Amino acid sequence: MSETVVRYFVGDRPAPALPDLDRGLAYGDGLFETVRAHRGRMHWWPGHWQRLQRGAAMLRMALPDEDRVLAEATQLLDGRDAVLKLIVTRGSGGRGYSPADASVPDWTLSSHALPSSPAGGLHLRWCDTRLALQPALAGIKHCNRLEQVLARGEWNDPAIHDGLLCSSEGDVVCATAANVFVLRDGAWLTPRVDRCGVAGVCRAWALQALPAREARLAVTDVEAADAVFLCNGVRGILPVARLGARTWQPHPQVVALQHRLAAEHPAFATEVS
Amino acid sequence: MSETVVRYFVGDRPAPALPDLDRGLAYGDGLFETVRAHRGRMHWWPGHWQRLQRGAAMLRMALPDEDRVLAEATQLLDGRDAVLKLIVTRGSGGRGYSPADASVPDWTLSSHALPSSPAGGLHLRWCDTRLALQPALAGIKHCNRLEQVLARGEWNDPAIHDGLLCSSEGDVVCATAANVFVLRDGAWLTPRVDRCGVAGVCRAWALQALPAREARLAVTDVEAADAVFLCNGVRGILPVARLGARTWQPHPQVVALQHRLAAEHPAFATEVS
Repeated sequence: MSETVVRYFVGDRPAPALPDLDRGLAYGDGLFETVRAHRGRMHWWPGHWQRLQRGAAMLRMALPDEDRVLAEATQLLDGRDAVLKLIVTRGSGGRGYSPADASVPDWTLSSHALPSSPAGGLHLRWCDTRLALQPALAGIKHCNRLEQVLARGEWNDPAIHDGLLCSSEGDVVCATAANVFVLRDGAWLTPRVDRCGVAGVCRAWALQALPAREARLAVTDVEAADAVFLCNGVRGILPVARLGARTWQPHPQVVALQHRLAAEHPAFATEVS
Repeated sequence: MSETVVRYFVGDRPAPALPDLDRGLAYGDGLFETVRAHRGRMHWWPGHWQRLQRGAAMLRMALPDEDRVLAEATQLLDGRDAVLKLIVTRGSGGRGYSPADASVPDWTLSSHALPSSPAGGLHLRWCDTRLALQPALAGIKHCNRLEQVLARGEWNDPAIHDGLLCSSEGDVVCATAANVFVLRDGAWLTPRVDRCGVAGVCRAWALQALPAREARLAVTDVEAADAVFLCNGVRGILPVARLGARTWQPHPQVVALQHRLAAEHPAFATEVS
């Protein structure tokens, strides 16, 4: 798709634009999902919707009707491969920060071109930006993303594909827009997301598929790993080839995981060379 | 004013609505100011604009032209007393979190009725929500305000006017929408805002006027204080009468400060009974 189309809704009704005094704009008071669409169908939708439900429970906000969202997204996608982005905010109103009077969610749908994945694996850097520890917002995909914006703004070199972030306590958490897995002493590990970070839908798949376990990881755990990959629900499994001065050759376990993802989930078949 | 009016701008131009893909909505990637307007003039505007400039420098984003903002706000206010809210976002675009391609800020102006202040002082509570430590975003008034929304959502009792928040390390930081000052052993103290919290424009005035000094404050410092007040740029100096079970009588130093504010800044003259 060459052009991005955005549609707006208030509760059950289409709207011409975002309503005045929307709390998503005012406070980042909302949630979002970025979904890989394959031939017009939203892949891993149950995982995305469940994360929205967890987020809505933590923020104590309402979600729109799931069937309505699916119907509108399907119409917007019109059979195409694309990235479908859904933003749901708490709606408009309330006096200042108080959420008490905002009960009808505003939501938007937009479709975007699928990103291409670099041949030969990702090149990463370490970000200086640290993620604050906030268990009340951890794991969910809320719209307070200034830390990710600051981190992604640290470099402009197009040869660097993403950056790894540590928490304010120094443990490795994630990339700016993906989860991270490392192979260490024969075991697959991924950082916990109970104090910061997002519980990705592809992360959930990889945790079961490898299998892997959650752990607190130090910078040295990543740099000494035998293999590293990133993953997210849009791009699937992304092998890491370089992190600063450290390089990795393609690892057979990561290649196998990519093929397994493509076999089980044909939406990702084009990602395997 | 009975109705809220919102105006939208993209860089130098008026716009009918918030542009599609605005990063304020997507990520809370923006800043805001809430200004007391007196007879159509924005009070403490230099302090508000300087905080915007500090925020823009920390987020590395552009601001609109100050004279243009002032002219549009003055027109919107039309000589009235009101609260003027300005939101400035990084603008639209960029690939994902990357801010590289967003260089023209989107901004909105809205005017709202002035809030009334309770006679007899504020009743406060302690919030359970903790503020995460994030020095890269501390002090500025950015649009990532989910912590404040969660904190303000902890109570619905209209007899409670605001809540005090502690950081994740347990030191007292602020109320959900105001700074806090305490009189302790004859000295006025207010929490530092170098790891979380907002550097309020009325806080800056009170720091000089009392004078007060910045400190790390424990919960017991507040509960054992001889006097407590909140302050912000819209409502001025707000004496605290109750915090949970603790009560305070009106303190002559707080009453004197209110009268001094009203004398030096007639915008606040109506707040003194």
